[in-house]
Amino acid sequence: MDQEQPAREACGVFGVWDDPEAAAKTYFGIFALQHRGQESAGIACTDGKEIRRHRGMGTVGAIFADEQVLAKLTGRGAIGHVRYSTMGASLLQNAQPLVANTQWGTFAVAHNGNFTNGPSLRARFEAAGAIFQTTTDSEVFLHLLARAGGSDDPAERIAAACREVRGAYSLLVMTPGLLVAARDPQGFRPLWVGRTAEGKFAFSSETPSFDLTRIQPLYEVPPGTLVVVDAAGARQVQFAEPRPAHCVFEHVYFSRPDGVIYGDAVQEVRKALGRQLAREHPADADIVIAIPDSGNAAAMGYSQESGIPLEQGFIRNHYVGRTFIQPSAASRTLSADLKLNVVRSAVEGKRVLVVDDSVVRGTTARRRCHYLREAGAREVHLRVSCPPIKSPCFYGVDFQSKGELMAAVHTIEEMARIMEVDSLGYLSVEGMLAVLSNPASSYCTACWTGDYPVPIEEGMSKRSCGE
Amino acid sequence: MDQEQPAREACGVFGVWDDPEAAAKTYFGIFALQHRGQESAGIACTDGKEIRRHRGMGTVGAIFADEQVLAKLTGRGAIGHVRYSTMGASLLQNAQPLVANTQWGTFAVAHNGNFTNGPSLRARFEAAGAIFQTTTDSEVFLHLLARAGGSDDPAERIAAACREVRGAYSLLVMTPGLLVAARDPQGFRPLWVGRTAEGKFAFSSETPSFDLTRIQPLYEVPPGTLVVVDAAGARQVQFAEPRPAHCVFEHVYFSRPDGVIYGDAVQEVRKALGRQLAREHPADADIVIAIPDSGNAAAMGYSQESGIPLEQGFIRNHYVGRTFIQPSAASRTLSADLKLNVVRSAVEGKRVLVVDDSVVRGTTARRRCHYLREAGAREVHLRVSCPPIKSPCFYGVDFQSKGELMAAVHTIEEMARIMEVDSLGYLSVEGMLAVLSNPASSYCTACWTGDYPVPIEEGMSKRSCGE
Amino acid sequence: MDQEQPAREACGVFGVWDDPEAAAKTYFGIFALQHRGQESAGIACTDGKEIRRHRGMGTVGAIFADEQVLAKLTGRGAIGHVRYSTMGASLLQNAQPLVANTQWGTFAVAHNGNFTNGPSLRARFEAAGAIFQTTTDSEVFLHLLARAGGSDDPAERIAAACREVRGAYSLLVMTPGLLVAARDPQGFRPLWVGRTAEGKFAFSSETPSFDLTRIQPLYEVPPGTLVVVDAAGARQVQFAEPRPAHCVFEHVYFSRPDGVIYGDAVQEVRKALGRQLAREHPADADIVIAIPDSGNAAAMGYSQESGIPLEQGFIRNHYVGRTFIQPSAASRTLSADLKLNVVRSAVEGKRVLVVDDSVVRGTTARRRCHYLREAGAREVHLRVSCPPIKSPCFYGVDFQSKGELMAAVHTIEEMARIMEVDSLGYLSVEGMLAVLSNPASSYCTACWTGDYPVPIEEGMSKRSCGE
Amino acid sequence: MDQEQPAREACGVFGVWDDPEAAAKTYFGIFALQHRGQESAGIACTDGKEIRRHRGMGTVGAIFADEQVLAKLTGRGAIGHVRYSTMGASLLQNAQPLVANTQWGTFAVAHNGNFTNGPSLRARFEAAGAIFQTTTDSEVFLHLLARAGGSDDPAERIAAACREVRGAYSLLVMTPGLLVAARDPQGFRPLWVGRTAEGKFAFSSETPSFDLTRIQPLYEVPPGTLVVVDAAGARQVQFAEPRPAHCVFEHVYFSRPDGVIYGDAVQEVRKALGRQLAREHPADADIVIAIPDSGNAAAMGYSQESGIPLEQGFIRNHYVGRTFIQPSAASRTLSADLKLNVVRSAVEGKRVLVVDDSVVRGTTARRRCHYLREAGAREVHLRVSCPPIKSPCFYGVDFQSKGELMAAVHTIEEMARIMEVDSLGYLSVEGMLAVLSNPASSYCTACWTGDYPVPIEEGMSKRSCGE
Repeated sequence: MDQEQPAREACGVFGVWDDPEAAAKTYFGIFALQHRGQESAGIACTDGKEIRRHRGMGTVGAIFADEQVLAKLTGRGAIGHVRYSTMGASLLQNAQPLVANTQWGTFAVAHNGNFTNGPSLRARFEAAGAIFQTTTDSEVFLHLLARAGGSDDPAERIAAACREVRGAYSLLVMTPGLLVAARDPQGFRPLWVGRTAEGKFAFSSETPSFDLTRIQPLYEVPPGTLVVVDAAGARQVQFAEPRPAHCVFEHVYFSRPDGVIYGDAVQEVRKALGRQLAREHPADADIVIAIPDSGNAAAMGYSQESGIPLEQGFIRNHYVGRTFIQPSAASRTLSADLKLNVVRSAVEGKRVLVVDDSVVRGTTARRRCHYLREAGAREVHLRVSCPPIKSPCFYGVDFQSKGELMAAVHTIEEMARIMEVDSLGYLSVEGMLAVLSNPASSYCTACWTGDYPVPIEEGMSKRSCGE
Repeated sequence: MDQEQPAREACGVFGVWDDPEAAAKTYFGIFALQHRGQESAGIACTDGKEIRRHRGMGTVGAIFADEQVLAKLTGRGAIGHVRYSTMGASLLQNAQPLVANTQWGTFAVAHNGNFTNGPSLRARFEAAGAIFQTTTDSEVFLHLLARAGGSDDPAERIAAACREVRGAYSLLVMTPGLLVAARDPQGFRPLWVGRTAEGKFAFSSETPSFDLTRIQPLYEVPPGTLVVVDAAGARQVQFAEPRPAHCVFEHVYFSRPDGVIYGDAVQEVRKALGRQLAREHPADADIVIAIPDSGNAAAMGYSQESGIPLEQGFIRNHYVGRTFIQPSAASRTLSADLKLNVVRSAVEGKRVLVVDDSVVRGTTARRRCHYLREAGAREVHLRVSCPPIKSPCFYGVDFQSKGELMAAVHTIEEMARIMEVDSLGYLSVEGMLAVLSNPASSYCTACWTGDYPVPIEEGMSKRSCGE
Repeated sequence: MDQEQPAREACGVFGVWDDPEAAAKTYFGIFALQHRGQESAGIACTDGKEIRRHRGMGTVGAIFADEQVLAKLTGRGAIGHVRYSTMGASLLQNAQPLVANTQWGTFAVAHNGNFTNGPSLRARFEAAGAIFQTTTDSEVFLHLLARAGGSDDPAERIAAACREVRGAYSLLVMTPGLLVAARDPQGFRPLWVGRTAEGKFAFSSETPSFDLTRIQPLYEVPPGTLVVVDAAGARQVQFAEPRPAHCVFEHVYFSRPDGVIYGDAVQEVRKALGRQLAREHPADADIVIAIPDSGNAAAMGYSQESGIPLEQGFIRNHYVGRTFIQPSAASRTLSADLKLNVVRSAVEGKRVLVVDDSVVRGTTARRRCHYLREAGAREVHLRVSCPPIKSPCFYGVDFQSKGELMAAVHTIEEMARIMEVDSLGYLSVEGMLAVLSNPASSYCTACWTGDYPVPIEEGMSKRSCGE
Repeated sequence: MDQEQPAREACGVFGVWDDPEAAAKTYFGIFALQHRGQESAGIACTDGKEIRRHRGMGTVGAIFADEQVLAKLTGRGAIGHVRYSTMGASLLQNAQPLVANTQWGTFAVAHNGNFTNGPSLRARFEAAGAIFQTTTDSEVFLHLLARAGGSDDPAERIAAACREVRGAYSLLVMTPGLLVAARDPQGFRPLWVGRTAEGKFAFSSETPSFDLTRIQPLYEVPPGTLVVVDAAGARQVQFAEPRPAHCVFEHVYFSRPDGVIYGDAVQEVRKALGRQLAREHPADADIVIAIPDSGNAAAMGYSQESGIPLEQGFIRNHYVGRTFIQPSAASRTLSADLKLNVVRSAVEGKRVLVVDDSVVRGTTARRRCHYLREAGAREVHLRVSCPPIKSPCFYGVDFQSKGELMAAVHTIEEMARIMEVDSLGYLSVEGMLAVLSNPASSYCTACWTGDYPVPIEEGMSKRSCGE
């Protein structure tokens, strides 16, 4: 993956109900989901009467660096959210959870995904006199909850709202009296139910965020279903017929390798993709190296299948973070990659096969292959453990616009020439789907095939999390 | 390596002379040495007349986050320093480079190492009326430079000072007119000479810090030698007979794997240590995993030699940094490791062989092996790619006191029991030295053997960088 | 005035239209209105297409301390707001200007005052499905602007909204195409029209905020009137019959002494109040001193009328600000007033007459009179240049609740005893009104007389700025 | 006084011994001395064994804003220091108290004044091999304390050091075992002894800093004398013959009006200067106004003597502080004085007599008189309550260099023309001295007369506090 302009994920959500450490668990929960969004984060907490929220721009660690902040989020119910990075502090208003005061009480919403009918719903509400405070499509969900009429039961209001939105949504909705997890009929994005050591319910985008606080993963929220947790316990409400179209890119890149989604262990899938890649695109090479960390597992799979020894060709610098500001006074002198440095002793004089999980714009891959050659690699062969990305995503992944998707406008041969590699091989769509447990029809492959399982509304923002 | 209480390195130094981007290059230079010290950092810069310095507590990125700071460090000569982490902002006065105004002009000093005769030198100067501003032993070097008498040639004063100090020192000394690199007769710590793209001279503790700014590594400063750079060019001055005793722990843990020290590529050495470890301590295991990142290369070597497949058993969380403050309100709920999470799918039901580079106190290793078992590992075998650490270091490594060195007070069997592993194997001293290029006699093995190449003065601080 | 728990003002507003330095002028404008609110501040700016806003907790200087912030607020129209101090960063959402995206476009609103029918309007909108993001009553104005139906001319929508709200409001409303100033029919709070050196229009709560940027005060916005400024120039629209009820407390305490409101120069009014006070409540005293700075002008008037010499009895410490945090470790040792220190040489052995502008809870006055006596004053006579405050304000002043208004529950004699003064005199309502230029009937005296010119709705928040 | 480039004072010192709240009292003590220096501040504290120090750039409130900082300064002895404002964070090393570790133990020093033989002492020590860490002359005192030989009794070492320095010094020196206050033979700067409520000893530059913590002023440290406080109690040691030459500028401007120095109450002196000024320089004017706050007392005296009524012609903005950064984006629009605004209603159409305490460069006075005229003043007469300042100060006041002292290069008539005032009058030296209690010969008038009571060494920095 192009680490300087990576595909950006559709946020991450976490929640827990009836737990004396609700905010603290949510803090660790969203901390472990930080890879799904580093632009902003927030936690909303309820004590059964009010909902208090803290959100900010930046990483979870920075936003909650002041101990007092978390200490003030008292109560037994909490939801949290991380959001991907864009620029500008002025977007604090877009940070989630969103909170709204309505005649039906207060609602907090954390949304991972993208409503494909957001624009028309927004227009409908605006015409009726509604005010919008954010530029996210998530806000229409609040207006659906707040509108006049309908049941005064919060769970029924949430189900009714879910029936009106289209597209991708793994949602957590909290009121002072309940916590609801809702997943769209396609199950585009992952959403797990877990159980705390004390037997209470928790929800998260990914299972590794359960590990830090000893929450047991139970099952994935079924597509088209709400899981409602309140004083009476938990219950499932199916609000729509499931028509699974799980995002495969979660397996390829987004999700943590130590988790399980759609029934498959992510790291195992990635190794299998690497093995399949070795079968589809073998090469005469001396060593296999990964672009760390996104290509690690696939490179391991490629090495195992091909028998070409695995080496560590790049060293990752762990001190480049969001706090690292590259002074303009210093930038002219910089002639290499701050994040990854080539291990000259490993690659010098070698025919190097580099494995990455995906290529979006190609500029970073090109630069890194160049550094390998500068360090003495005799040949550089690039292997990519997913098919060429040719179409934008409208379900929560922020790929660059079509014009910036290298594979949308170039042939494989052209791309090999542009990136200056001796050979280039992408995994096939069929090969990719073959390593997954579920039927091929239950996955979304739109970004590779252009085949969109849910129609896109004119004027829709392609941005995830509604922005 | 125990990552929560790791052995702490003896700082890192970087310098460049007669370069229009001196401060910027030094900034990137010490940034790439950040692993050698995260407590404090600083840069001193000279425009040929004055020496300006900025230093602070924390990481290089944080200290120089304000662009103005670097912009004010104008001039063509610069030296920088990073220092390891202790607690307390009150120690800003100990941050380096140290700067002193004397009758001989202004000197800036950056020191990696530990003067074993620091206490007696300090007492001598105090008796003569000197004032000490820091609690570091590095400060005695300034007093040696400032003292009355001797040559008024700065290089000669530096050579004379070097002849009076004992122990470990890779030093950079800068005046408005020259830059000097000095390395102790034992060459305990690494120190490189490099050449910029424009043909100017640079110095650094490690070669990877040259890569970012296109500096070519030339050679290591010979033990007992000064390299003097000034308007006349560069020249070497041997001030003492070399008696090499290079620190092997630099290869085992401290130095970056993408560099070369004492003539050997670090990653190649680590893989060779892993291969030797496999020969000395084989095991019936299903998979080999590393403690990332310190055990990565050795695990790779072990896997290659033993034929047991390498797997990724732990995922590292890149968002735990110095900015991550663990709220006390949140800590009770935490039940796992913030930095490393086990990949359940990789280890469940397996006989797991774990490779780490070293074990100091054993508490972290114990905890991590425990998590492996919780995640379903059937057996856990621990292999350590260096011998048991039994003695403190007085040459610049901050090992815990002897009482805290697990191997100083326990047998291998006891340690296996304490860490609850099914088997435990450490590399032998002979095996370790065998993989290195230089004669065994040219290395310091004091922390493993108790055999100290330079005598230790009574009352000496064991702390590195003089603290 | 009790400076530790002062009556808190109803915010301040400033705006300018069609000026290339709109944000900068607004910055200085609200800086000069800082005394009207130190809790939060904000500026919204339009470039004719979008509205950008920056707001924060704290003082204007702190919120805009980063130059980049102001530099990003480009455009030729701007409005700004300061808000009084309460506690808690969580109230950032209440900071103004408020901004709303509606079907009629984007509106920014800055409000000084209090809608007395805020609760019922809010209930009406909530019943129709509206979402509220703040706890301020100012937000209902946005919903009135956004509602379905009505004219699509922004100025007409603003006039229509003004006809529905009751109570106190000096409002600035900005869209990308115009800037409107609106003042309630009672003209409770001041609101000025000014003209820049370039002939453009500006608005402000008080005239001194014009002085910093060479804006000429023109006239006060007439009660019940809008002043609309757009590309066509400026025009007045009377939306309601004026029924003046100007707040006299603006003269007594809130407004800056270097300004003019309701046609009278504030400092002249204060001196006249002091002179009238001397006539109503003479005393045998050696010196007259003021509680600085709020009592300065009245004390000067008292001295002039009575012939008793004016002395400086207290010295104000200018370094106690919002950035001054009193460490709890230090607080036990503190035995005097951080802000005002007694000038012993001035008061020792004297019969001291102290003039303050008002007394709310009486605790600070009591303490200060005590310090005078500790410093050797023989007698302490307290004179207050307004009548006893007995009733809460619902038009934008945050007096403590009725139970905390000293004069609401105590007689003059009791108050003199409680504050331990030798005599106590308050100005009469008639005496106060007599020094003003307009007819007595055109002022609001509710806090002294309980005679409310606009009825109060059940459940109304007494807080200013809608909170 | 020219408030934008005011004469800068020679720092302020405060100390207390054997008090359980030593650091907290010192915190409030230096807070109340903040007017004597806003560049940096610090506190050193001892628990009888070690000396801990915290210092920083900025105001006392900002430096100690983090409660933890003060909480860590435990112990029963403390000294504090404030230093005037210059630019640049790089001067943190110059902030006091200075602390030195020597063979005689640890010493902390806080210095108000200027050693006139600092350069030669510094040269002497440098020649002997000493290192200097600051650019202040205060540091030579540490070297005098540290030097070899002499008594090992700290008080005797301090007395011996005092006998070697020349010029102005009100010094506090602390070791773990004692606290010493020392004042130069001329008594240039004030220095008080006080007694806490518990009967312990305290020291301060000015008495108002005692008021906050209920310390009783006892007497001023006699010139040429040490007051030593240790476990045995307090004792006085005369180390030199007193030859008083008290700085009159302390009365004119520097010292707080609520204090007493050299036996006279400051505010009474200032009023008397104003009365004398009225006698020397009467005028036909309608009102007297002060430049607040420095001219307040003199204006009051002038009004009383002349019978011309006192008015408030300027309003001071209390929100302009060090935290107020004037954005460059905003500066072009600024056309008036951020700190003082003219009260138009007070001055319009009037013949205005303005009283200020002193004029240094004349630019601010000129600008303010201009604003008065812009606001409608018919005539502007300037009266200055001290003589024309013609010579630099070498005893601790930072007047601009001689070339910038307006009165050094212009006649009264020229100055009146430059400042565009209708008349200009300065107090005479004789008139000034006549209002003071001590004989005229016991004051230093060098800045007015050029008559220096202690000879100045070639090359001496004119800067106070040694910089």
